[in-house]
Amino acid sequence: MRKKRSECPFSRSLDIWGDKWSLLIIRDIIFLEKNTYGDFLKSPEGISTNILANRLQQLEEHGIIEKMEHPDSKTKFLYKLTPKGIGLIPMMADMYLWADSYLDKDEQEQLPDIMKRKLEVLKENRAQGIKNLADKLS
Amino acid sequence: MRKKRSECPFSRSLDIWGDKWSLLIIRDIIFLEKNTYGDFLKSPEGISTNILANRLQQLEEHGIIEKMEHPDSKTKFLYKLTPKGIGLIPMMADMYLWADSYLDKDEQEQLPDIMKRKLEVLKENRAQGIKNLADKLS
Repeated sequence: MRKKRSECPFSRSLDIWGDKWSLLIIRDIIFLEKNTYGDFLKSPEGISTNILANRLQQLEEHGIIEKMEHPDSKTKFLYKLTPKGIGLIPMMADMYLWADSYLDKDEQEQLPDIMKRKLEVLKENRAQGIKNLADKLS
Repeated sequence: MRKKRSECPFSRSLDIWGDKWSLLIIRDIIFLEKNTYGDFLKSPEGISTNILANRLQQLEEHGIIEKMEHPDSKTKFLYKLTPKGIGLIPMMADMYLWADSYLDKDEQEQLPDIMKRKLEVLKENRAQGIKNLADKLS
């Protein structure tokens, strides 16, 4: 585990999941229903095998994801968000809403259908408060 | 500017501000009312001068912060959030609320008073919707 840098709650949180690759893995689980090492490896950002293994281990050690046996294979594992990991959904939702407000939207046309559907649910439910989204998105 | 990795809005956002140091600079501006290079350099996480210069430039290039002349000195600059940067406050608020729910709170006692006050405002106003927080926190 990395050493925490300060007593600040932001800094301590960022030491757990505050890097691009960790957040992309969390995105994969929430918005793309990915749940295996092989799934994460295939994401378009091209994570390397050593970074992926490192981030999965770190997220597991900090109780953000849990690793379970895969029902179809003894050599594969399933990764799911724990309640602590599900607690990150509001933040991920805000992250998307920021992108939706401030970044060019043209490229979103090319997103996988499953992600488009989940992002649509997220926008429709924004007014009702994103805290209720965890159930709908999981 | 870094090359974007994919068309995904999460990935594109993370390429702009999704690393620990950028987010700590944004924290400094929002919650600690810091606004100069020297202020950021003094934060307890100990950012290095080259990373700080790089992140300030990147955040400015992407329109998250703006660099202005300092009223007191010709050799210093003021950094402030643009509207696009202020748009990150809800996400930062959720990040704090996550930490407040899931991390040990003992260490928060040692935070600077200004940050404690702002975090308190943030928690009190959570029920009214974090989107309204931008004015109160800025």
